[in-house]
Amino acid sequence: MIGNVDHVGIVVADLEAALPYYVDVLGLPLVLREEQPETGVRAAYLDAGPIRIQLVQPTRPGPLLTHLEEHGDGLHHVCFGVPDIAATLRRLAPGDDVTVAIGGGGRPVSFLPTRPSGLRIELTEIGSHD
Amino acid sequence: MIGNVDHVGIVVADLEAALPYYVDVLGLPLVLREEQPETGVRAAYLDAGPIRIQLVQPTRPGPLLTHLEEHGDGLHHVCFGVPDIAATLRRLAPGDDVTVAIGGGGRPVSFLPTRPSGLRIELTEIGSHD
Repeated sequence: MIGNVDHVGIVVADLEAALPYYVDVLGLPLVLREEQPETGVRAAYLDAGPIRIQLVQPTRPGPLLTHLEEHGDGLHHVCFGVPDIAATLRRLAPGDDVTVAIGGGGRPVSFLPTRPSGLRIELTEIGSHD
Repeated sequence: MIGNVDHVGIVVADLEAALPYYVDVLGLPLVLREEQPETGVRAAYLDAGPIRIQLVQPTRPGPLLTHLEEHGDGLHHVCFGVPDIAATLRRLAPGDDVTVAIGGGGRPVSFLPTRPSGLRIELTEIGSHD
């Protein structure tokens, strides 16, 4: 199978404004905050038990900012952890010119060009140490 | 904290048409299919490692069908498992008139009336046997 769900991504216009509800009201521990210059986002990761919830704010023009401007804050994607992102992309997106960039936790990440049932699927390459 | 993520819900107009990509291409095992008359949906649950992915098709008019008609197929909600749904609703939605119905796996389920960062949050009451 493709791999385990790693996180669910929620796009937000203002990370600082969004965080308190998740941390203080829902009580989800904040485990990581980082700037991701290659993907052009600022992200925070919350421990939601078996997976993480990612709050992600675009920091430059691109598909994520366009999505935010069109739809506002909201649930955006599901990310699967895979052992070999290049191999998974060859299988699931053969012939497509897909960009791989360094994303959350310094891992290679990519979005599939296809959207089954409208679902945006991100892949993140998890090393053997994860 | 609120609880662990139980599943992520993807609303679809046609469950039978949506399933093959998830099962045959992504390789996610289909673990449960059911009609949920109280919530007015037909659902399939896929094993995505630490959580399940739910494909959910509305079977009668209601908020889910309205969402589908307005937005089409797509990622819809995150569901958290909680030990006592009434207690969680008293804490997170005090004073709100929130409906609890029997949903997936025969468990009591409810949606929070608030949508932090646009996120629809469902609760499902997990018993001690889950």
